[in-house]
Amino acid sequence: MKLYETYADEMADLIRQGVLPPGARLPSVRQAKQQRKVSASTVFEAYNLLESRGMIHCRPRSGYYVNLRKGPQTPEPHTAAPTAESRPVAISDLVFEVLGSTRDVGMVPLGSAFPSPQLFPLDKLAKALTPQMRSLAPAQLTGHLTAGDEQLRRLIALRYGTSGLRLEPGELVITNGAMEALNLSLQAITEPGDVVVLESPTFYAALQVLERLKLRAVEVATHPRTGVDLDSLAEVLRQHPVKACWFMPQFQNPLGSLMPVEAKQAMVRLLTQHHVPLIEDDVYGELYFGHHRSPPAKAFDTEGLVLHCSSFSKSLAPGYRVGWVAAGRFAQTIQRVKLMTSLATAVPSQLAIAAYLETGGFDRHLRQMRLRLEDNASTAFRCIARYFPKGTKVTRPQGGYFLWVELPPDMDALDVHRRAVDSGISVAPGHLFSADQRFRHHLRLNYGFYEGTELATALQQLGTLLIASR
Amino acid sequence: MKLYETYADEMADLIRQGVLPPGARLPSVRQAKQQRKVSASTVFEAYNLLESRGMIHCRPRSGYYVNLRKGPQTPEPHTAAPTAESRPVAISDLVFEVLGSTRDVGMVPLGSAFPSPQLFPLDKLAKALTPQMRSLAPAQLTGHLTAGDEQLRRLIALRYGTSGLRLEPGELVITNGAMEALNLSLQAITEPGDVVVLESPTFYAALQVLERLKLRAVEVATHPRTGVDLDSLAEVLRQHPVKACWFMPQFQNPLGSLMPVEAKQAMVRLLTQHHVPLIEDDVYGELYFGHHRSPPAKAFDTEGLVLHCSSFSKSLAPGYRVGWVAAGRFAQTIQRVKLMTSLATAVPSQLAIAAYLETGGFDRHLRQMRLRLEDNASTAFRCIARYFPKGTKVTRPQGGYFLWVELPPDMDALDVHRRAVDSGISVAPGHLFSADQRFRHHLRLNYGFYEGTELATALQQLGTLLIASR
Repeated sequence: MKLYETYADEMADLIRQGVLPPGARLPSVRQAKQQRKVSASTVFEAYNLLESRGMIHCRPRSGYYVNLRKGPQTPEPHTAAPTAESRPVAISDLVFEVLGSTRDVGMVPLGSAFPSPQLFPLDKLAKALTPQMRSLAPAQLTGHLTAGDEQLRRLIALRYGTSGLRLEPGELVITNGAMEALNLSLQAITEPGDVVVLESPTFYAALQVLERLKLRAVEVATHPRTGVDLDSLAEVLRQHPVKACWFMPQFQNPLGSLMPVEAKQAMVRLLTQHHVPLIEDDVYGELYFGHHRSPPAKAFDTEGLVLHCSSFSKSLAPGYRVGWVAAGRFAQTIQRVKLMTSLATAVPSQLAIAAYLETGGFDRHLRQMRLRLEDNASTAFRCIARYFPKGTKVTRPQGGYFLWVELPPDMDALDVHRRAVDSGISVAPGHLFSADQRFRHHLRLNYGFYEGTELATALQQLGTLLIASR
Repeated sequence: MKLYETYADEMADLIRQGVLPPGARLPSVRQAKQQRKVSASTVFEAYNLLESRGMIHCRPRSGYYVNLRKGPQTPEPHTAAPTAESRPVAISDLVFEVLGSTRDVGMVPLGSAFPSPQLFPLDKLAKALTPQMRSLAPAQLTGHLTAGDEQLRRLIALRYGTSGLRLEPGELVITNGAMEALNLSLQAITEPGDVVVLESPTFYAALQVLERLKLRAVEVATHPRTGVDLDSLAEVLRQHPVKACWFMPQFQNPLGSLMPVEAKQAMVRLLTQHHVPLIEDDVYGELYFGHHRSPPAKAFDTEGLVLHCSSFSKSLAPGYRVGWVAAGRFAQTIQRVKLMTSLATAVPSQLAIAAYLETGGFDRHLRQMRLRLEDNASTAFRCIARYFPKGTKVTRPQGGYFLWVELPPDMDALDVHRRAVDSGISVAPGHLFSADQRFRHHLRLNYGFYEGTELATALQQLGTLLIASR
C-alpha cells in the first residue's frame, strides 16, 4: 500500500469512528506535514482519494471537511449499563426456541449469525484440496494430530506475524472452529461456579456455553462503538472473584464495536495486574472496513494470559470447521483437553485451507469481501433511517456484518420476532443477548447475507412491519 | 454369501470362542441336518471349507474334529475382579507421561491406539471427495449443520438397517469422531460427581474423559473373551446410584472381548429395568473376524436408552474425524450440547465419506482389512507363545487389533514400558487401564500396525527384552 493510501485510511478510520464528525475540518496540509512527517503531495493525494470516496469535500481557501451524511440520520444507542451482579445463566431454552423457528430455508435471514456462503471462494478451496488429498502421506492422518497440521499452524502464525503479532506456532492449537476454541479455553481456566465477565450485550452463544459449563456471568458496560468500558471493567474486577473475561474487541457481535488500540493495551494491562486471563474472540477480526487490521488484544499480552481464538468460518471457509486458539501459557492444557474432547481436527479441512493460503489469494478475497460488507452496511443505514419507526437507534459497526438496532422502548423484540417470522423474515431479538434478558426492544440484524436491492427490500419490509405493529 | 459359507462361519465362530475347543467333535451331518435344517451337501461343503482353512480335520468313520493348535499355547487371563467402590479418576497425568514418551515416529508402535494408516483406501476417499467439493452448493456449508449431512446420516442408518438394526436417521448426530460422540453422550446424561460404570480393564481415554468431567468410576468384572459379567453388573447397580454405563460390547479395548448376543440382550434388559442409559462404544464393531457382524447392544434397545457411538476412524478414514451417535431419546439433547461445543462437523470429511459409501467399496475394503488383522493376530499368538516369558497369559480377541497380555506377576509394566522405549518399542502399560492402576503386570499390544515378518520381529524383540529384564 502506498503512503497516501495509508494516510487516507487513517483519516477514514477517524471519520468512521466519529473522532472526526460530520462537518469537522481535517488537518491542514501544514499540520499534516508537521505531525505525520508526510509530504504535501501525499496529503493532497490522500484527501483526493477520500473526496472521490464521498467522505470529505474541499472548501476553497478553507480546507477539507468531513461530509455531512445525506438524508435522515439514525442516532447511535447509548452505552449499555448492566447490573453489577454475577448470575448463573439460563437462556439456552429461549435461544433454541427462537432460533428453531427461523430455520426455514425460505426465510429472509436478517436474524442469521452467518454471512452469505456466496461471499466465499469455495471453488478455489475445493481446487486447493484435491492435490493435497491425492498426495497425502498416510502417516499424516495418524500423526501428531491434536495440535493440528504443522504447515497450517505455521501459515497462521506467519499471517499474524506480517500484521505485527508474533505468535509461536507451538502455542497454536487447531480446533473444530472457534466454538471449540472458546470452549476449550473456558474449560482450561475455569471450574463450575466460577465468574466470567462478558460484554453487554453479548453473543448468545457465549451465554449458552457459560450455561453448559455452569459458570456465572457478570456483564460489563460496553460502548456501541468502542467496546468494553474500562472503568466498568475495573469495578467488576474489584467486586467479583473473576476467573476469566470473554470479549470480542474487534467487531463485537452484536454491536460491531472496535476497541481503540490504546484501550486494548490498557485492558490487557489491567487484566494482567489482576492475573485474569482474557479469552479474545476474534472471529470477525479480518472483516474490518478500511485497510487496516486493528491489532488484537493478544498483541499486548506479555504474560501469556490472552487466549486468542479465531477461525476461518467467517472469513474464508464456512463448514470446514477450522479454528484455532493461540493460548499462551495455557497451550499445553488446551491440547490435553482437546485430546479428551474431540482428539483432533479434520485433516482434509486443514489441508485445503493450508493449500489455499499458500496460493496467496486470501488477501484479495478479503479485500473484496470487506468492500461488499461495507457497501451493505451503507445500504442498511439508509433503509433503517428511511423505513424504521421514529425513535430507532442503530450502531455504527466498524467491521463485521451485524447492526444492533434499538427500537422505541414501547416495542417488544420477541413480539417483533414472532410477527417477522410470520412474514417470512428472521431477526435476532435482543432478549438473547444478555443473561438477564435486558435488551427487550433491541434487534440484531445481519447485513452480510443479502446485498443491494434484496437487502433494501428486506429492510423495507421489516420497517413496514415494525411501524404496523406499534 | 452362500448357505454353506454361513454355516461354516457359525462353526468357525464357535471354535474361536472356545465353545468348540481343540479336539472337540463337530455336529454330525445328521445332527446338523436336524438342528439347522440344512442339506447334507451344505454341511459337507461347510466342513470342507473349514478343513481347507486349517481349523478342523476329518477322522474316517468318526466325524470332524477341531484341530489342536500347533506349537505351544499361551493360556488366557482370568476375569478381572475389580473392587466394588466408586472413585474419582486421576489418571490423565500418567497417561500423558507414558504416551508422550512413545510419540517418536521411529518407535515400533506396539503401544499405539491406531491401526496402520496403510490399511485404509485413502486414494479412493480422496477421489470420492473431489467431485463432491466441486459441485457443492454453498448453502450446504451453512445449512442444518449441527446434526450432520443428511445424505451421510441416511447412508449410516441404511448400513445398520442391512445388518438388522433399525435406526431413525433423526436420532443420528454426526460428530467429530467417536471421541466427541462419547463426550457428548456423557454430558447429555451426567452431572459432575455422578457414578459411571466402566469395564475392567477399560480404555484409558474413557478414564480421562471421566476425570475431565469430574465423574466417579466404578468398574465391573469383565471376562477376557465374553466381556461384561452380568452378575457383577447387577451387583454394581444394586450398590451404586449409577447414572450411565460406558461399555464396548464388541471387541473391547484392550481385551478384544465380544459379548455373546444373549448377554447383550440380557444386559440391555437389566439396564432398562434400572433406567440406566448405556453408552455403547462400537468403534471396532466392523473389525470382526469371520463373516458376521454381531448385533450391537443398541439392537435390543426398546426404550431409547442406548447411546450407540461409533466412527469411521478405525474402519475407513482416520483423520477425517467423522463419527456419530445414535442417541435414542437423548438425540435432541446431544444436538444441543454439540451446538454449544463445536457447532458442527467438517463438511468436506462428511461429503468424502458419503460419496465413498455410495461407490459400494466399503464392504470389500472391510473384508480385506479383517483378513489382514486376523492374520496378524495369528502371527502375534505364535510369537508370544514362542518368545514371551513363561507364565505369560494372553487374550483371544474376537476382532479389533489389540491383545491384552498378562505378564508373570513379578514384572512391572511401567518398568517394561521404560525399557521398551529405550529399545525403540512402545507398549501400553496396564497401569493406564483402570482407575486404581490395578493392572500392574499387563500390557496392551497393537497387532494392527505391523504385519508379517515385521510384526514377528517386533514381538521377538519385545519378548527378548521381557525375559532379559526379569
